[in-house]
Amino acid sequence: MWVMRQAGRILPEYRALRASLSGFKELVETPDLAAEVTVQPVDILGVDAAIIFSDILVIPDAMGLPYEMIKGKGPYFPEVVKGKADIDKLNLVEGEELTYVYDAIKETVKRLNGRVPVIGFAGAPFTILCYMIEGQGSKTFSNARKWLHAYPKESHMLLEKITASTINYLKLQIEAGVSLYQVFDSWAGVLSEDLYREFCMPYLNRISEEVNEVPNIIFAKGAHFAIDDLMSSSFNAVGLDWSLKPEKIRGMNPSKVLQGNLDPTLLYAADEVVVQKTNEMLSSFSGGGHIANLGHGVYPDTDWRKVKLFIDTIKSSKN
Amino acid sequence: MWVMRQAGRILPEYRALRASLSGFKELVETPDLAAEVTVQPVDILGVDAAIIFSDILVIPDAMGLPYEMIKGKGPYFPEVVKGKADIDKLNLVEGEELTYVYDAIKETVKRLNGRVPVIGFAGAPFTILCYMIEGQGSKTFSNARKWLHAYPKESHMLLEKITASTINYLKLQIEAGVSLYQVFDSWAGVLSEDLYREFCMPYLNRISEEVNEVPNIIFAKGAHFAIDDLMSSSFNAVGLDWSLKPEKIRGMNPSKVLQGNLDPTLLYAADEVVVQKTNEMLSSFSGGGHIANLGHGVYPDTDWRKVKLFIDTIKSSKN
Repeated sequence: MWVMRQAGRILPEYRALRASLSGFKELVETPDLAAEVTVQPVDILGVDAAIIFSDILVIPDAMGLPYEMIKGKGPYFPEVVKGKADIDKLNLVEGEELTYVYDAIKETVKRLNGRVPVIGFAGAPFTILCYMIEGQGSKTFSNARKWLHAYPKESHMLLEKITASTINYLKLQIEAGVSLYQVFDSWAGVLSEDLYREFCMPYLNRISEEVNEVPNIIFAKGAHFAIDDLMSSSFNAVGLDWSLKPEKIRGMNPSKVLQGNLDPTLLYAADEVVVQKTNEMLSSFSGGGHIANLGHGVYPDTDWRKVKLFIDTIKSSKN
Repeated sequence: MWVMRQAGRILPEYRALRASLSGFKELVETPDLAAEVTVQPVDILGVDAAIIFSDILVIPDAMGLPYEMIKGKGPYFPEVVKGKADIDKLNLVEGEELTYVYDAIKETVKRLNGRVPVIGFAGAPFTILCYMIEGQGSKTFSNARKWLHAYPKESHMLLEKITASTINYLKLQIEAGVSLYQVFDSWAGVLSEDLYREFCMPYLNRISEEVNEVPNIIFAKGAHFAIDDLMSSSFNAVGLDWSLKPEKIRGMNPSKVLQGNLDPTLLYAADEVVVQKTNEMLSSFSGGGHIANLGHGVYPDTDWRKVKLFIDTIKSSKN
């Protein structure tokens, strides 16, 4: 079991460190500090794995579109992809561009000394395309979706380039020491079955097939319409958000491990509700492999003691 | 056939009028002007129905939480509901509070003189609760969801009060002349099957059963997990967003009319793609009643000529 966004946000120890720095990027790009906050939830919360503290946006950054983190607003890209010429100019990530991530992984592996495995990750190509085109978060990502309909050829070109970079990036994370990796398709939910099949699945499957040295997880938030395709993909595990019922999905492919899926806002509820709903969640995943987790990243204003209660409830049920 | 957000946004005639005013609220609250922009898409685009130009937020406004429209950001409520005392203070909408809406409907009916029917609308109780608690738009509405888990009793109290106001409001819209109405559950997608069944369906069904003088439509954006419940509800028609396939849903209840569901970003594509995808959409709804529409509101930067092409394609297929 682990918790999406377990490193950072909710822990007072993280906030104290973060407050002493110039910003989010300094933390991500300083391997010793990234390793420190990666290990914090292992020590404090007792999770079964450490996910490297980083961001899916290091890929567009390394490809030539630097991001800024704007307080209270989120990521912002001063430059975005506006057409084919911009795609041609993007770098292919091949080697040393993201050394700070590999160094943070090595340092984390060293500090953990075998206590728990380290999880690597990357954004799914479509989600990275969303940021490269919109330049910031969006409720609808209508510009990104516009691209798929209006410039399908250019969209595929861009997705190809992101995919190739992501494959290299994940292989180097494995060399640095991660024991499994998750691909986050955070904005999958704005698409449809047909668009997902055309613009997402081929790239996801390519990543999974080429980066096959360790097990992997795909988490496509909101992609209820693609669950058949994800369950028959080459990923070892499929993450479910809280809108999906594992009882309805398990049968599609009983050999798949399922991950998830407590609604993170349940961690605002009273202790007895947290315990009850966590146990119900565990039962709902019975009958096959299960990585216990939330159904989305933990929200920043969650009391870390509720997260600990969630974790303890899962651990005591295993005993 | 009609188009969600057909009145406003995309038409140059709307923008010209809007630019001459102090803001969005002046337009909503001035019956002659609201009627003018309501009729515009009937004249210019040739839709089969006029939906009254208004906003779902007039209900929280009339209940005592005034909203502001902030340019480039959307709605903002200086005061929000923070606890039971705030719920107790809210007004029940019973009569004259929203006279400007009823007057706009009467004026529209007069101007249309029977050419096409007028559609009324309201927000679903959960979506209104979202705004009352968060005070603005949100990607996750995590505070609103927190309320459902942490304060279920207070959430039901608030939903009761919104429902009672909405029923009165819709009945007065019908008295003023609307021929059908749609309930917009715009933020339904942040919930789950269980939460939707507990906090949404009872209130939606009550509205539908009590406001039964004219046909009605429920559009719960993103609520794929609740589609069984919606298809067995007492609404006459169920709106589908573009993530749902009517071929998979029609069979749940063949007597239901389905509405939708072209992806509004398809209106950014080349003309031949718009025509092809619109025809495919029409085929996908065959085998039962269909109100042709988009799968979500038209985006503001859409070329109105593409909307006209969408409409003309639907009309020519009917002939």
